Amino acid sequence: MSFRTHLESVVNQVDGALACSVMGFDGISVETFQKDEAVEDLDLSGAWVEYANLLTQLKNAAEALKTGAVTEVSINSEKVLTIMRLVSPEYFLVLALSAEGNYGKGRYVLRVTAPKVRAEL
Amino acid sequence: MSFRTHLESVVNQVDGALACSVMGFDGISVETFQKDEAVEDLDLSGAWVEYANLLTQLKNAAEALKTGAVTEVSINSEKVLTIMRLVSPEYFLVLALSAEGNYGKGRYVLRVTAPKVRAEL
Repeated sequence: MSFRTHLESVVNQVDGALACSVMGFDGISVETFQKDEAVEDLDLSGAWVEYANLLTQLKNAAEALKTGAVTEVSINSEKVLTIMRLVSPEYFLVLALSAEGNYGKGRYVLRVTAPKVRAEL
Repeated sequence: MSFRTHLESVVNQVDGALACSVMGFDGISVETFQKDEAVEDLDLSGAWVEYANLLTQLKNAAEALKTGAVTEVSINSEKVLTIMRLVSPEYFLVLALSAEGNYGKGRYVLRVTAPKVRAEL
């Protein structure tokens, strides 16, 4: 099973999903699956590069804290919900949902998909 | 109603809540309500100062994006779930839950509490 199959499966399982990517902490997308009707006017890839940068800082910050390793970060704006889940020290999964999307299902599906993606890295 | 009453109400409504604060983007807590049994060994205030710093960057990043203003950020580690909700350009609410806490209820209660806190700023 390729990365893309996993990403397509995530997007198809979650109501309101717009796109799902495997990204490196350098902000470069390894693979992306985006719904056909997904909003062209949302600069998702631009947002994700910024988020990757912030995640890197968070990982470093978390090491100095006692709250344990950061496993999931979510950044929600008026139009888009974004859930990021760490896959390995180098890569993370990111899922974008419309503001009305099924957020709880999105978190769940990313949690179960992360180990499958990790196995292929 | 004081800030503290709102914060106490949030903590009491959400299963697994550890503490709730009103914080400035400078990382300084305006007011905090913490459960008596809340974990001394978790350096929550240290974590929140780091998170405030990251939130500030996010606010700035979001202005350059098309996904609309950032309203909520969540940073989840192995031991602690943290939900932050913007109250005003200067302040945000932060809620810490144990990893088994009721995350969905936490998001909901912060969303309805934010306007009440804003009214008192």
